[in-house]
Order: sequence, then structure tokens, then C-alpha cells
Amino acid sequence: MKGKFYGIGIGPGDPGLVTVKAVEILNKVDIVIAPETKHGKGSTAFQIVQGHIQDHSKVRLQIFPMTYDRDALEKSWIQNRMEIVDFLHSGKSVGFITLGDPMIYSTYIYLLRDIQNQGFETETIPGIPSFCAAASKLGIPLTEGDENLCIIPAAYDSDNIDQLLASGDNFVLMKPSKDFPHVVDTLERHDLAENAVLISKCGHEDEKIEYDVKKQRDEKIDYLSMLIVKRGRTNQ
Amino acid sequence: MKGKFYGIGIGPGDPGLVTVKAVEILNKVDIVIAPETKHGKGSTAFQIVQGHIQDHSKVRLQIFPMTYDRDALEKSWIQNRMEIVDFLHSGKSVGFITLGDPMIYSTYIYLLRDIQNQGFETETIPGIPSFCAAASKLGIPLTEGDENLCIIPAAYDSDNIDQLLASGDNFVLMKPSKDFPHVVDTLERHDLAENAVLISKCGHEDEKIEYDVKKQRDEKIDYLSMLIVKRGRTNQ
Repeated sequence: MKGKFYGIGIGPGDPGLVTVKAVEILNKVDIVIAPETKHGKGSTAFQIVQGHIQDHSKVRLQIFPMTYDRDALEKSWIQNRMEIVDFLHSGKSVGFITLGDPMIYSTYIYLLRDIQNQGFETETIPGIPSFCAAASKLGIPLTEGDENLCIIPAAYDSDNIDQLLASGDNFVLMKPSKDFPHVVDTLERHDLAENAVLISKCGHEDEKIEYDVKKQRDEKIDYLSMLIVKRGRTNQ
Repeated sequence: MKGKFYGIGIGPGDPGLVTVKAVEILNKVDIVIAPETKHGKGSTAFQIVQGHIQDHSKVRLQIFPMTYDRDALEKSWIQNRMEIVDFLHSGKSVGFITLGDPMIYSTYIYLLRDIQNQGFETETIPGIPSFCAAASKLGIPLTEGDENLCIIPAAYDSDNIDQLLASGDNFVLMKPSKDFPHVVDTLERHDLAENAVLISKCGHEDEKIEYDVKKQRDEKIDYLSMLIVKRGRTNQ
């Protein structure tokens, strides 16, 4: 019998924000795959769940490089997928751990598609998205009553950001660090800069919260950052 | 010493999707408040976590009526808040359980504000939003790469739904049951009806998934429903 493939959302970083079901499956599967970005760098995802896994000998690190080089990316993906498929063919169940929620900006979805297409049984366990943890930490509701909420990847300069900022109520701008001055300018153009809160490394020891994003405009912003913007709420 | 107030997100319904931290706090606090909509109706939230709470004698049900009558609502809220504040004043810690994530369409936020304003220490534990669980169940990613995601409360006919549907990439339409024909018509006007999947009672035994929303247009839709709509993905 072929093994089953699990995608396991492990939440934003706090080991306590892993679900009971994720812990169960981590201990039930034969193999746990933990991604790392570089050989020897270690896996952030594994660090989060290590206290929840009884038998660490079943953990395999796989390298998913952080690069814009499509060929290098593709090569490592194919290799990782082949290793997973080999495990599944030999009857072993495999759990792939992924930060946050597997259905929100996760590269897991590409693995899932390929493995489903090969006819294997799969199951995805949702996880806490980083923006939920950030909102709880700040005590700022993401959305109330009849308000809408737009999750926008700020690392890309897409055409429709202006339209969304003009018509939406509340916003999460994910990964604004790539060109933070541009993001702040965009918010200013929409009169929303004073509604924005910047949170970096939420839940980590060196977490930072900044209410004056204009003052941060030309500072170095951590990659693990997001902006929460509520039209009906200002910092003043 | 005054007690601490915890808001505890317990996720969409599956007891397995409660976090490790939520379980810890449920067992650490002196009092657990579980909302019910009517006296004797029981608390859905309590049903989800009951297996995680060792001492059920600390659970108190509070009635939060589902009504559009603002006076009746206000009266029950004040009464509930006063009871919580009394516990906190007497040094008891209180955990308030809330479905999904506490910062997404939750009435907990009003309690939190009032209790914070009275100077009590508070902490909010995020939970899995219902739309994350639905997306995992369907195997449909909510957002990939440079796509954005708009969470829209479909029970309200706000002005900006059309603008969002015109400019966003992916959508979750929450609670579309109030006027489902209108919601389907709106999607059709934006050429998105064939991109929509309707999921009702996700994770419950009588869960339903419908890929042809036009066929469902005039059917009775369960209150616990949502539509997931991806511009780049059709059912055909």
C-alpha cells in the first residue's frame, strides 16, 4: 500500500501555536520533511515543532533555496519531490511541515499538486497565518462587522494595489521590506500611512512594533515583517 | 492581585485544530467563559474544546443572543462583561473562548476593548480562521505568488464589493446565505461564478461542497457557509 502525504501548517513561529492535530500527525507519520534554505543552515520550521516530535530520527531536511533563479529552484524542487514520492511508493507516510497556513503564500501547494497528480492520497492541516498572530499581539482586529480585509503581497508592485487600497477597508501588507520607501509612499498617497502598524519578527524574542511608519521609511526593515492597516483606526 | 483576561481562538470546529497553547490556557485559567446564543441551547465553542478541558466545573455559559435588536444585544453584553469583570476583580483569571480567530469577525473584540479600558491585563491567542480550514479541505490555495486575497462579508451589501471583485485576485465571501441569489448574481456580473466553490459546515459531519454555484442559486444555503473564488481557477 502506498503512503499518504500530509501538508502540516505549523503556524507563525511560537511552538504553542501548533495545533493538536499537527502534533498528532507529526508523531504518526513515518517521515517528517523539514525545509531549509541552505545546507547546514537548519530549518526554522523544524525548530518550531522539534519539541512536539518524539522520534527525531524520522526528520529529513530538504533544501528549498531562496533564489530568483528559476532553474536552480526547479532542480531542487524536482529532487525533493522525487525523494518524497520514493518514500510514498515504499509505503511510508510523509508529513511536510510548512510555516503559517499551507494555503496562504506557501510553496507547499506546488508539491501538493504534483503529488496529487501522481495519484497519492493527501491531506492538508491548516495552520495559524502570521497575520492572525500579529493582530492578536497588537490587539488590533483585522476585520469587524461589515468590514472587508485585503491581504496584499507588498513585495510585488502589482497594478491593482492602488485600486484595492482605494476601495478596501483593512489591509495586511505582507513582506514590505523589499522596497519599504515605496510601500510607505503608496500608503501616504492613500492617506493611510498613519493607520499602519509595522510588526517585525512577530512572536520572536527580537520582535519589533512600530507605529510611526513614516519615521521608519528609510530604515532597514526585517524580511519577516508585515503592515496592518485599518482605515477606521489611526495611530494619532 | 487582579486576574488576567484571555481571549482564546479555538479554530473552525475540529477539536484537533485547537492549538497547544489554547489547551494549556484552558486548563490554567480559573474560569472558562463559553458563549451560547440562547439559554439551554448549549455552546458550540464549548463542544469543540470540552475534550481538552480537564475540570468542567470551571466552565460558565454566557448568553450572547443572535439578534439585530441593539438594545437586547447591549443589555446581554453589559451583563456578561460585568460578570467577567467581577471574576477578574476577585483575582480569578478568565478565558473567553471564541470560534475561528479572535481578530476576524469576532464579537470578542468588543469585550477585549472594554476590559482593557478598565485596566486589566489581557492576552489574545490566535486561532485557525474558518477560511483556512475550508481551503485546506478543498485543496484550493487562497493565495499564491503575487496574488492578493480579499475577505468579504457577503451578508452586507456594501458599496465596495464591486470594486474589490473588479480589482482583486482571490476572494473569500463569508456568510453568503443571507441573500444567496444576490451573491451569485454579483459573481456572474464579474464573470466569477464559475470560479467559485461553495463550502457549507466545513469540518462537520454534514459538510457540503458545491462546485456549481449557479445551480445552487435558489437553494437554501446553510448559515455556516462560505465561497472561495480564485480568478485564475475555474470549475470547468
